[in-house]
Amino acid sequence: MEMKTNKEEEVEWATTVWSHLTALRDRSPLIQCITNFVSMDLVANTLLSAGASPAMIHSQQEFSDFTPHAHALYVNVGTLSPDWLSSMKAAALLANDLRKPWVLDPVAAGSSQFRLNACLELLLLKPTVIRGNASEIIALSQAGIDMGPTKGVDSCHESMDAVEAAKFLAEKSGSIVAVSGAVDIICSSKSITHGDRLVFVHNGVPMLQKITATGCAVTALIAAFVAAADPLHAFDATVSALSVFAIAGEMGMELAKGPASLRMHLIDSLYGLDQPALLSRINITGLSCHNT
Amino acid sequence: MEMKTNKEEEVEWATTVWSHLTALRDRSPLIQCITNFVSMDLVANTLLSAGASPAMIHSQQEFSDFTPHAHALYVNVGTLSPDWLSSMKAAALLANDLRKPWVLDPVAAGSSQFRLNACLELLLLKPTVIRGNASEIIALSQAGIDMGPTKGVDSCHESMDAVEAAKFLAEKSGSIVAVSGAVDIICSSKSITHGDRLVFVHNGVPMLQKITATGCAVTALIAAFVAAADPLHAFDATVSALSVFAIAGEMGMELAKGPASLRMHLIDSLYGLDQPALLSRINITGLSCHNT
Amino acid sequence: MEMKTNKEEEVEWATTVWSHLTALRDRSPLIQCITNFVSMDLVANTLLSAGASPAMIHSQQEFSDFTPHAHALYVNVGTLSPDWLSSMKAAALLANDLRKPWVLDPVAAGSSQFRLNACLELLLLKPTVIRGNASEIIALSQAGIDMGPTKGVDSCHESMDAVEAAKFLAEKSGSIVAVSGAVDIICSSKSITHGDRLVFVHNGVPMLQKITATGCAVTALIAAFVAAADPLHAFDATVSALSVFAIAGEMGMELAKGPASLRMHLIDSLYGLDQPALLSRINITGLSCHNT
Repeated sequence: MEMKTNKEEEVEWATTVWSHLTALRDRSPLIQCITNFVSMDLVANTLLSAGASPAMIHSQQEFSDFTPHAHALYVNVGTLSPDWLSSMKAAALLANDLRKPWVLDPVAAGSSQFRLNACLELLLLKPTVIRGNASEIIALSQAGIDMGPTKGVDSCHESMDAVEAAKFLAEKSGSIVAVSGAVDIICSSKSITHGDRLVFVHNGVPMLQKITATGCAVTALIAAFVAAADPLHAFDATVSALSVFAIAGEMGMELAKGPASLRMHLIDSLYGLDQPALLSRINITGLSCHNT
Repeated sequence: MEMKTNKEEEVEWATTVWSHLTALRDRSPLIQCITNFVSMDLVANTLLSAGASPAMIHSQQEFSDFTPHAHALYVNVGTLSPDWLSSMKAAALLANDLRKPWVLDPVAAGSSQFRLNACLELLLLKPTVIRGNASEIIALSQAGIDMGPTKGVDSCHESMDAVEAAKFLAEKSGSIVAVSGAVDIICSSKSITHGDRLVFVHNGVPMLQKITATGCAVTALIAAFVAAADPLHAFDATVSALSVFAIAGEMGMELAKGPASLRMHLIDSLYGLDQPALLSRINITGLSCHNT
Repeated sequence: MEMKTNKEEEVEWATTVWSHLTALRDRSPLIQCITNFVSMDLVANTLLSAGASPAMIHSQQEFSDFTPHAHALYVNVGTLSPDWLSSMKAAALLANDLRKPWVLDPVAAGSSQFRLNACLELLLLKPTVIRGNASEIIALSQAGIDMGPTKGVDSCHESMDAVEAAKFLAEKSGSIVAVSGAVDIICSSKSITHGDRLVFVHNGVPMLQKITATGCAVTALIAAFVAAADPLHAFDATVSALSVFAIAGEMGMELAKGPASLRMHLIDSLYGLDQPALLSRINITGLSCHNT
């Protein structure tokens, strides 16, 4: 594999991301969402604006009828309770049985043992993608999923940064791992289909952190992109979702006067995003799968 | 009954709709809402902007004290669970006992047997109005409420379109049935107070479908219009709610740059809607009850 | 204590409020929120815009791990159910044990006996601050918290207005009591640390009442201001929160075309509020604690 110049990489990624967005808009995948109460509105509106069809279905009574029609499942533990956790696990199991992709947002994974254990149990059900912020991904990687959920922090990982945590978690979980931040990190391990990959998305604006549920929203968007993609391209679909959301954030920021107007312009920009705007803004480093 | 020209119909409807909106603003009815988690924010803001007073009260412990003070009940099955279904049925029964109008939004009625059965059980409690999209109304009409909830699709209805489904459901349920779409359909059967009526609202914009919970919001608005109206005019109140919401959508669309700004401008327009704007935009076909 | 001119009071309050806002932005306190489903989005976005960090954690399984890290607890009974009430009480007890401030929003306190009893039970757990509208505060004061929750209205209080109700409730509960309205009232009783105080905030715009959850949002903001302040200054922190929110509302109103755009501009204004804008608008009567 020959290393390309950044310019060539950029053009290749632009083509990849645009084709994934076009596929999403064309296929309008149905995304089953089991998400937290805070984020339901923004998650649903993000999915609709991107071209997907959201369905907030959390009662187990409905899964056997509904989930077979969904194209992906999105699970978010934000306002977790034991009842909802049961639903999340049942839905993830069913998604696996049905060979549907599913995506996990381990909100505030490290903030309680109950929540950490819940996330680890969900990890064992092999999400296609996990997307969190650095603290969440580090908390999960340090919890040592191989060693069982109660072992707590492994001291040897204490100093590793988000990239190392993401790599470690990808290796251990077999999932694609995405870390949102000033630079988004997406990685997968050589032990899975997508191979040993590490990609960085450099778009986005800091003010997104001043809007509740933008993390939840981008994870839902990953589910939609993955749902619309060939399963072999789930990694690039994940990169594309993060890139598109961050670019919509940048475009929204140019019109925003604060977090609430940014939220509005972000969704409007996501809806209206066209190929020239994408091309002029895309900033991804690392190789697209067409190179591997 | 003499057929009128469209122009005469239009003027008559403009008077009717404006008088219903004025009554709503004057009376500020209290609407008890048992709705889904996704829609609570938009439903409450829609009701407030229109002049009504929303109260999200779903615990059965409160019904005997609270529901007697409400002017209407709004039930929406969007994020249904067995517990919430029990609350919905208890509230609907109490509304009936208290002779309060109640309105049902059968969100995604056909997406699971649990949900379909729930909607059919709620239908048996005789909502004043049912408002859904074409798929939902067709699912309910095909489920054959006379034949019990488990009989499934009656093949003779398979090809009927939304108008036929609405008519059939109105006949079988005794409720006013509204179907939202490019053209909204409102019908009632000759077996009920409101007589054999069929009215079409031609306002609205397609982008409303790209905003979550706009269907939920318009159903809540129907509850508010019906609550503020004489019970004999519930049909015209339903038409008025759909017309006002659709016109606010059109006005919002003129300022919108995407779904999120449309949502904002829709609510602002609903709040500020005046008689000249209503008159210049209203587009209803079918006769107002003053003609019957 | 010498009475000051209004001008001197105003300058002193401007300094006090600005220093509280600065402390909030600097310390970014973590606020545990157990709030209603309708308000979660606006509450979280209000806290983020003001500089605080919200966490919606309502499962008792998480309290022992999480609550020690929170700087304040916010409890709101808007969409109350028995399960959530148990969580609220457990969280308030724990906050007390940990000597964390906690703030109560008794939404619609008088609308059912279940809700009134719930609020009275929560009052017995001694919130640092209670914030309601006039009806809610009057309902609580009339319920006679000394006399047990089932005694109902004490006729001698029937004619008292919001100020008298607030004073009475502050005396009986030992909490700081805030009443939102055209003029906000904040009072405390001589029996508690903050002394016998009564302050009025004259900012704000009526259209805030046309936006759902603005009351919930300002109560959450009180929790954030109190969390960032010295415990001895909880009264001034409460006044500051009400003042800042009302000023952001006024600034938002200058750009708004209706309730939905007001909501957006309110949050943007809260985020961007600077000292000159605060100084030019602040309108508080009554003495700041620096005078007492």
